Amino acid sequence: MTHPFDAALGLQPADEHHLTGNTSPAYANMVGPYGGMTAAQLLHAALQHPARLGDPVSLTVNYAAPVADGAFEVEARPLRTNRSTQHWLLLMTQGGEVVASGTALLAVRRPTWSAPEAVMPEAMPAFDSLQKRPTQGYPAWVSRYDMRFVCGGMGADFDGVEQPDSLTRLWLRDEPPRPLDFASLAAACDCFAPRLWVRRHQRSPAGTVTMTVYFHADAALLAAQGDRPLFGQARAQVLRDGYCDQLGEIWSADGQLLASTQQVQYYKT
Amino acid sequence: MTHPFDAALGLQPADEHHLTGNTSPAYANMVGPYGGMTAAQLLHAALQHPARLGDPVSLTVNYAAPVADGAFEVEARPLRTNRSTQHWLLLMTQGGEVVASGTALLAVRRPTWSAPEAVMPEAMPAFDSLQKRPTQGYPAWVSRYDMRFVCGGMGADFDGVEQPDSLTRLWLRDEPPRPLDFASLAAACDCFAPRLWVRRHQRSPAGTVTMTVYFHADAALLAAQGDRPLFGQARAQVLRDGYCDQLGEIWSADGQLLASTQQVQYYKT
Repeated sequence: MTHPFDAALGLQPADEHHLTGNTSPAYANMVGPYGGMTAAQLLHAALQHPARLGDPVSLTVNYAAPVADGAFEVEARPLRTNRSTQHWLLLMTQGGEVVASGTALLAVRRPTWSAPEAVMPEAMPAFDSLQKRPTQGYPAWVSRYDMRFVCGGMGADFDGVEQPDSLTRLWLRDEPPRPLDFASLAAACDCFAPRLWVRRHQRSPAGTVTMTVYFHADAALLAAQGDRPLFGQARAQVLRDGYCDQLGEIWSADGQLLASTQQVQYYKT
Repeated sequence: MTHPFDAALGLQPADEHHLTGNTSPAYANMVGPYGGMTAAQLLHAALQHPARLGDPVSLTVNYAAPVADGAFEVEARPLRTNRSTQHWLLLMTQGGEVVASGTALLAVRRPTWSAPEAVMPEAMPAFDSLQKRPTQGYPAWVSRYDMRFVCGGMGADFDGVEQPDSLTRLWLRDEPPRPLDFASLAAACDCFAPRLWVRRHQRSPAGTVTMTVYFHADAALLAAQGDRPLFGQARAQVLRDGYCDQLGEIWSADGQLLASTQQVQYYKT
């Protein structure tokens, strides 16, 4: 059976730099698709291009307009290919109008002196010891993940009382489980709810307007992770006049930083 | 007298979405221009476009190839204009080849409930109490800033002894002083040396391959800052197989977070 993530990701080549796809009801958000799926589709377009060189180092996706349910076109164009790096332009359009834009950097990595510097938060409760986030009453994409919050969760405790910070920590796994790859790692980076909701303990209109993902994992680290739960963490630095930033991290079950991610969210209050 | 930053920034409109410029010897780096100036030029191209709507919220610049000294062309194209937001494609080319690519989001901000969440490091030594970084023997762009390191500085103490972290903290001001604007704030975000150098206390080939800037300042915060020194902070989360990330912040003299910034640096050891 095809995993829902792979079914949603599917793109059909149209010509050298263009592909077509369809939004997937399985990853629907409140308006249009889950932004993480849009990011995954744009990255996937580059990764399945015949001219691809190397693996992802960075991806930036700008959510220019709501993606309407239905067909879309992706343009994936290598702007510059060097000896070991490749820079991509990524555009998603509907009816000739840009709905998402982005860039990606791929590279062939070679072993060098290496050092982790950030460390995963210690003494986190285990995945199995935590309650699965309820999904009933939420958009479909929430059911595509098994999310288990350590703090800064969604929903039941939203009492409108302002919190001292917007920190979210959670374990996260595709539902059903699926071995991690670059596309699903990109998608996971958008799993965090708007920081405003966590900070104010109430929901109001908010959404991602731009997201950047830095990939620290190579194919070996992805394989070592397999389909085990990921540990995610996100927090805001500033919420100001309708826009808020978010710094996030996705850690492997073994405590390796697989991806770091930043985004800006718009919000209304 | 025209400030060197403004002289370097200068772009001439060629047609609706194209401008021409020249690299400035005053902002030369070891190979090609200072990446912060390239970022500033790309942002400036959008900001001086007749179709501009709003002020910068985010900017991503990918350094696709070394920029050769001399003439370049910039394409600045609004991909999508909404009621209060505008998404831009930004390309710098030389001889028809892409040397830098990017995207930007501009927006009209409206007052909302707001909250800072990150706080500026406390009890930092004052700008006036610190030594100015020597500039002799360094590329020209270093002389365009008055940098005063609190920790993680460059140069004199580079003894090849590995440090526990790559944290840099410094005060930073245009030299000569110049009132802060969006372009110079973008440029300042690239002022931090490669994290590898700070971590290992030695220099080796390294450079920025992609940088994202989130602008938290509006025109009023820029005006409040004026030409006073900025406080900057940067650190790596991972250095791994030739690539390293960097999280950075630029704070106002009053302790307001004006911009947060992320980048990936390549390195050799």
